[in-house]
Amino acid sequence: MDQKDEMDDKGVSRRQMLIGTGAVAAGAALAQFGGLLKSAEAAGGSTEKWPWPYEKLDPAVTAEICYNEWYRVFCGCAVINSVFSQLREKVGEPYKSFPSDAFVFLEGGQVGWGTICGSPAGANIVANLIIGPRIAGATAGHEISADTMQWYSEAKMPVFTPKTPKQPTAIITTVSDSPLCHISVGKWMKASGFALASPERKDRCARVAASTAYQLVEYLNDWKDGKYKSTGDFTCSKEFGITGQYNCNDCHGDKVPEAPQVKKS
Amino acid sequence: MDQKDEMDDKGVSRRQMLIGTGAVAAGAALAQFGGLLKSAEAAGGSTEKWPWPYEKLDPAVTAEICYNEWYRVFCGCAVINSVFSQLREKVGEPYKSFPSDAFVFLEGGQVGWGTICGSPAGANIVANLIIGPRIAGATAGHEISADTMQWYSEAKMPVFTPKTPKQPTAIITTVSDSPLCHISVGKWMKASGFALASPERKDRCARVAASTAYQLVEYLNDWKDGKYKSTGDFTCSKEFGITGQYNCNDCHGDKVPEAPQVKKS
Repeated sequence: MDQKDEMDDKGVSRRQMLIGTGAVAAGAALAQFGGLLKSAEAAGGSTEKWPWPYEKLDPAVTAEICYNEWYRVFCGCAVINSVFSQLREKVGEPYKSFPSDAFVFLEGGQVGWGTICGSPAGANIVANLIIGPRIAGATAGHEISADTMQWYSEAKMPVFTPKTPKQPTAIITTVSDSPLCHISVGKWMKASGFALASPERKDRCARVAASTAYQLVEYLNDWKDGKYKSTGDFTCSKEFGITGQYNCNDCHGDKVPEAPQVKKS
Repeated sequence: MDQKDEMDDKGVSRRQMLIGTGAVAAGAALAQFGGLLKSAEAAGGSTEKWPWPYEKLDPAVTAEICYNEWYRVFCGCAVINSVFSQLREKVGEPYKSFPSDAFVFLEGGQVGWGTICGSPAGANIVANLIIGPRIAGATAGHEISADTMQWYSEAKMPVFTPKTPKQPTAIITTVSDSPLCHISVGKWMKASGFALASPERKDRCARVAASTAYQLVEYLNDWKDGKYKSTGDFTCSKEFGITGQYNCNDCHGDKVPEAPQVKKS
């Protein structure tokens, strides 16, 4: 399940493949494209306090819950529920009051529009609900989001195999190089030959969700133990002056535009 | 503010430009790429009831709140807070308990990764929290999400001009043809020449968030009045057998792959 070695190796090779503009900053860090402003007069809820109480979970148990839950609520909501259903039992509030099922719409990259895969989108929601936003002073939720998307992009998906697969045939794995649903599922469909509506594709996505839930719980458990360190090595705004992924050539070919630079005054 | 005429016109022309495979289904509808399963043993929270109580809001007031809130919590969270801060006053619970500020991470297409723009991502969250998920029997949240992403993709952004802009210079508008942050902000940066870190780019994104909050409230008010009808005319899974947007050629050029089809048995 540990993808860290593969991440590091791929980190080098994909960096060599990049065509881009500005200086490549070493190391990741907090993405600071927006600036950081705090306000005493927050419009947020008055009950917002972080971090939420968290108890360590079993990654494999969580992944099994997520796999089965996918068939009820699909990728993003399955990831959220796989963690929160356990914390409702172990901790109670505020997990009990959180309306998880509203997040079914994360399916298919948000109601089928193929943007961010619901699995990392759901994981990002969980990490930031538990740890809190960077404007509240905690950066680990932000960093776990970046790490999750990079891990997702570089993993041979699906990583996790459920105990009782609904599709027992051997499953092809693919590397998406992107957290986008369209690219992730598209590369897998191309490699496997299975259609979007096929039971095999659905089972692949259920396993991708389960794989992401597994990884998320590993991050959260490390964070709970005070051991979490961001493994991400990519911040597009710093390296290329635009928000984005690292797979520039996938869409731009060899004609990657240069982002406008800040004018020196 | 009404983009519907433009949407319809563009809907025709972009449809003509599409290169794709399967039959083009007339009209939109619910995206059914995943199937619809209900379960009596839901892992979701036991307190989940929909719809949440909603009172109609003023779109322009909401957009002003969103614009200013962007400078504290950025795009996605600003859209959520612009609606929920008012409903906390007008309605109370469950809005008061919802931890909106956790969604700062939607910034920059999720912590700077350039996936879905935080503005439609935040709008999708609001619509589905209030109306509920399709598995609970209500489809309007799902449909408003699709409509929001299509409206966002086809609008000359930013649409909304705040009363007291922090950047008073005239602003260039661009059409993204995509709900993705990277594409939306990238096209604007290319047209305007302003860098990601410039005050002008930040103000553009604050106005994009405000524009989206305005449109979202128009949808929600129509829904409250029983007048909401989906205006979307695109469901990628039905038309092309894959989750996605309609801007195939933006990334694929003229080599749009065909999705594997379901094998007839």
